[in-house]
Amino acid sequence: MLGPRIWASVRQGLDRALFRNMGSWTSGEGKKVDISGIYPPVTTPFTATKEVDYGKLEENLHKLGTFPFRGFVVQGSTGEFPFLTSIERLEVVSRVRQVMSKERLLLAGSGCESTQATVEMTVSMAQVGADAAMVVTPSYYRGRMDSAALIHHYTKVADLSPIPVVLYSVPANTGLDLPVDAVVTLSQHPNIVGMKDSGGDVTRIGLIVHKTRKQDFQVLAGSVGFLLASYAVGAVGGICALANVLGAQVCQLERLCLTGQWEDAQKLQHRLIEPNVAVTRRFGIPGLKKTMDWFGYYGGPCRAPLLELSPTEEEALRVDFSSNGWL
Amino acid sequence: MLGPRIWASVRQGLDRALFRNMGSWTSGEGKKVDISGIYPPVTTPFTATKEVDYGKLEENLHKLGTFPFRGFVVQGSTGEFPFLTSIERLEVVSRVRQVMSKERLLLAGSGCESTQATVEMTVSMAQVGADAAMVVTPSYYRGRMDSAALIHHYTKVADLSPIPVVLYSVPANTGLDLPVDAVVTLSQHPNIVGMKDSGGDVTRIGLIVHKTRKQDFQVLAGSVGFLLASYAVGAVGGICALANVLGAQVCQLERLCLTGQWEDAQKLQHRLIEPNVAVTRRFGIPGLKKTMDWFGYYGGPCRAPLLELSPTEEEALRVDFSSNGWL
Amino acid sequence: MLGPRIWASVRQGLDRALFRNMGSWTSGEGKKVDISGIYPPVTTPFTATKEVDYGKLEENLHKLGTFPFRGFVVQGSTGEFPFLTSIERLEVVSRVRQVMSKERLLLAGSGCESTQATVEMTVSMAQVGADAAMVVTPSYYRGRMDSAALIHHYTKVADLSPIPVVLYSVPANTGLDLPVDAVVTLSQHPNIVGMKDSGGDVTRIGLIVHKTRKQDFQVLAGSVGFLLASYAVGAVGGICALANVLGAQVCQLERLCLTGQWEDAQKLQHRLIEPNVAVTRRFGIPGLKKTMDWFGYYGGPCRAPLLELSPTEEEALRVDFSSNGWL
Amino acid sequence: MLGPRIWASVRQGLDRALFRNMGSWTSGEGKKVDISGIYPPVTTPFTATKEVDYGKLEENLHKLGTFPFRGFVVQGSTGEFPFLTSIERLEVVSRVRQVMSKERLLLAGSGCESTQATVEMTVSMAQVGADAAMVVTPSYYRGRMDSAALIHHYTKVADLSPIPVVLYSVPANTGLDLPVDAVVTLSQHPNIVGMKDSGGDVTRIGLIVHKTRKQDFQVLAGSVGFLLASYAVGAVGGICALANVLGAQVCQLERLCLTGQWEDAQKLQHRLIEPNVAVTRRFGIPGLKKTMDWFGYYGGPCRAPLLELSPTEEEALRVDFSSNGWL
Repeated sequence: MLGPRIWASVRQGLDRALFRNMGSWTSGEGKKVDISGIYPPVTTPFTATKEVDYGKLEENLHKLGTFPFRGFVVQGSTGEFPFLTSIERLEVVSRVRQVMSKERLLLAGSGCESTQATVEMTVSMAQVGADAAMVVTPSYYRGRMDSAALIHHYTKVADLSPIPVVLYSVPANTGLDLPVDAVVTLSQHPNIVGMKDSGGDVTRIGLIVHKTRKQDFQVLAGSVGFLLASYAVGAVGGICALANVLGAQVCQLERLCLTGQWEDAQKLQHRLIEPNVAVTRRFGIPGLKKTMDWFGYYGGPCRAPLLELSPTEEEALRVDFSSNGWL
Repeated sequence: MLGPRIWASVRQGLDRALFRNMGSWTSGEGKKVDISGIYPPVTTPFTATKEVDYGKLEENLHKLGTFPFRGFVVQGSTGEFPFLTSIERLEVVSRVRQVMSKERLLLAGSGCESTQATVEMTVSMAQVGADAAMVVTPSYYRGRMDSAALIHHYTKVADLSPIPVVLYSVPANTGLDLPVDAVVTLSQHPNIVGMKDSGGDVTRIGLIVHKTRKQDFQVLAGSVGFLLASYAVGAVGGICALANVLGAQVCQLERLCLTGQWEDAQKLQHRLIEPNVAVTRRFGIPGLKKTMDWFGYYGGPCRAPLLELSPTEEEALRVDFSSNGWL
Repeated sequence: MLGPRIWASVRQGLDRALFRNMGSWTSGEGKKVDISGIYPPVTTPFTATKEVDYGKLEENLHKLGTFPFRGFVVQGSTGEFPFLTSIERLEVVSRVRQVMSKERLLLAGSGCESTQATVEMTVSMAQVGADAAMVVTPSYYRGRMDSAALIHHYTKVADLSPIPVVLYSVPANTGLDLPVDAVVTLSQHPNIVGMKDSGGDVTRIGLIVHKTRKQDFQVLAGSVGFLLASYAVGAVGGICALANVLGAQVCQLERLCLTGQWEDAQKLQHRLIEPNVAVTRRFGIPGLKKTMDWFGYYGGPCRAPLLELSPTEEEALRVDFSSNGWL
Repeated sequence: MLGPRIWASVRQGLDRALFRNMGSWTSGEGKKVDISGIYPPVTTPFTATKEVDYGKLEENLHKLGTFPFRGFVVQGSTGEFPFLTSIERLEVVSRVRQVMSKERLLLAGSGCESTQATVEMTVSMAQVGADAAMVVTPSYYRGRMDSAALIHHYTKVADLSPIPVVLYSVPANTGLDLPVDAVVTLSQHPNIVGMKDSGGDVTRIGLIVHKTRKQDFQVLAGSVGFLLASYAVGAVGGICALANVLGAQVCQLERLCLTGQWEDAQKLQHRLIEPNVAVTRRFGIPGLKKTMDWFGYYGGPCRAPLLELSPTEEEALRVDFSSNGWL
């Protein structure tokens, strides 16, 4: 549970008192963290009445803890963060921090629509134990979110964040691709360490790796569907929803890529594409949570307006796993 | 200012205590409000340090109050609602309520991503004086926001709302069109009174009017750019960003349409298209606020990440008004 | 049938001999034709073996001839022109010319991907009796089809065409909107008389009417779905696929609009939207031809790859007509 | 030059006499050709008056012939095929056939909008010497081009083609992705040997390789931008516009991939992305032809409506090559 001190500061945050005259944070010695590796973006378990179920969250983490993940992403798109209150977002991160090993990295999603709210949430995420902040592009006014606006936004956030910042581009949810030129500019910021790119365009990923090669900047694939290909063009890991159910396999794919066993990697990659599409684009978080129930984790319900799968959808989901040998 | 009682209830709302065992609200006698007419979606003025400037808000409302608007929309997309805290959203509505005439309608934007948060915000908006709630489609998980999910969402909100609900579809911001079949189903709900459609597809607007003709359901155009055409196919008014600066002209266009003076209406409509595009799609809220400064209102800055116009953009904005005879 | 002289010139056209040193055509005295009114874009009937069935074409035209259309569009998108050889395109136009009254206008689709081929086809269309050429935007290289390229294209075609040119923008087929600024520039060409806009964005139509008001330039709605709204913003007619089956009703809608009977117009407009969507966007030409069979015309098959409707689709098509009182 | 016999048959083709009662072609013994390797999609050189310049075509081919390409693609999108007459399309293929080594493969683009025209063009391409036909998806009526329609189309073409068929999906030009389920079905046809996928979605490419693994079906990347990644997921080659100017480098990238030198491959891949974007999506064929002029080939003008680059564009093009060390 959040301690009273943090609760207080969070509430103050909501009152916007905390950051009034705040100067630029210094993030230690500007030392950059190495974010390479595989991360499951953990789901937020809910009870039947749709309360956050912290007990189930801990159980899931214990099971996930048996795989060689680099860490966990909390409050990514898979975590239903837009459906949580600010306090729930922080509490979930706080709980995950307490449960997980100190050797692993906790990347916390802290993006909000306004720059100010994003700064506040990022600082709060640091306070509750996040190692780095993963900041999704603001998108409601996407017609005005050009490179200049996005560079301004991320620069402000990175200037004020006590922890390193990871850019997060997820066009399926935001309708917006963080432009390559903005990424290149932002890669030069001492407190921006990398990017999660969920768009699936590996030409773009290759170009970003190429154009940031003189910076200490790391790119993570946003999905296992193009993980092998991303490694091939220079990405250093992935944040993969499917790792919530097929953690061993995703880690194995990483190992095969890192050790240059490309043929075996390709075979494994192939068998992960359909299950991955099923738990992301096709059936979304309700699909992933249903699958978690099958694989011994707690999936449970989503918050509305995300609906449960229909029986037809559930059957199609099952086929996407069974036809690839996973069920 | 929000009184202590309301503040308390709002905070409780955030704690999710309020609605635990809440039954279905009865919205008076289910009497439907007539929402026909013109509304400016008011901007949220900020000080130089980006605090909400309630004094300027009141000044703007006094000036806008001289036009025969049906009412005001507060916390629409034009109001930068995604950049406000929950408390700011309510406080702004509360202030507007205090300033504006009781004869006019106050439509308050209360949409959030989760159904639960939307219900809470809607109830709170009613508590601070909104006459109706305008509820934008949730959109972050748009891949799963099919008709079933959206019908479920709006039904829940309308069931629990003490005030009538207006559906709000704005694909430029959400990447999502509320499907016609969902609108038709929802039009049968006793507490859903109409819709704001900002997509600009008048074929769709005509079809919605046609297929809801047996219901007590009203459609408002979401922009002055297609206001005349919307009247022609059966809409009953509009929520028009441009009315923040050309209020007299937008009301005149309404009058010409309602009195069947289509030729004059057409001429006036023509001259409003470019200025309207300029303060919406082209230059967004920064463009509208800049124009407000020109027209004797307080525009002021936007919250980040919305940036001010560049000098080149400002010049183009000016041309869009001057070439149509408005500057 | 095409006479031997025209056949010869057409063949020469294919050999690109005809236009080598051709100067600019003078289109009579540059007299502009008045294209206002309603046009069905006629379908191309095929026999069971997919040959053009000229007899059925004539029969359809005789029946369509009983309505007060301004003329006929031949080789529009509805005419399956991309599936016809150059010679078939010309032969069909030639036959229609012979059958139809001289008082009516024959607008012939003459667009091709290359400027040169479009010029040749336009000249040939004039030779076989077209009153004006309707020229669709080239689109295969749409990434390079900016305003400059399109202005260049249409200027060349209009310079060399012996008959007036009508611009044709149909984004559903081309993935390309002819930009407003290009339309405004082109409206100043003495041999460009107007535009067919099938995009359905009446804000855009209003803006085009407004910005070309000093030119002798006419806009036609590309579909009956937004015909009333288009009249309301200044269009002067429509090219309406649905007029192939509900010709009387489309002409009645025109009359109601022109005589200012907006209420009756609105009611009629409403009942035409779903049938129109059914024979255009939803079920395409196979849907239209199926409906023609129901309404006493010859519809018949389409050329492949357009497939016949499935029984389920056919049933849905029927409902779209019957639920609006047309079947 | 086309001999009189072929000319005659081509003309007959246009008259649609040839294929009236044609049964299913037998493509030899149904022996499938191995299409793996690198191909430049050759440009069509034009004289200053925009005639096909067969002499320059031959010169370019002689220069390209020094690289270890598997063969040449003629009449791909890069070949401006939509701007050529049917006879020019065949004549160009005929000339290329005469010039190029018999050991190399000639893939000829034979796609048209109608199934019938595509069959005729495919047969004619075989007659003038093509080893395989590359058939782009028809797209003008893309609203009806679902899997059923496309399966019907390609099956018909493959049934009647005397040479193997390669599917061709290029959404940037057609606005249409050949659906994966259609590809899987079509991969079972004995006369369909593979696919060129220009969409750049390697997840999709991986899935296609996976789901056609029991067939004798090969996938070629449609661009060098994602060539390495495509090899990584199981593609066997590429049809790469950039190979028209950096042929040695593209072949070197192939070799590095095939020999498992992934690190060097990655470095080379990175340096090819920007030049490739420049000669495809960004500046199109005018960009490629301009670059060909720089690299000792004949580029020359494009046919209208493709315009030459502006000086600003040309400078940006140059930077895309020089900043990667190619100029």
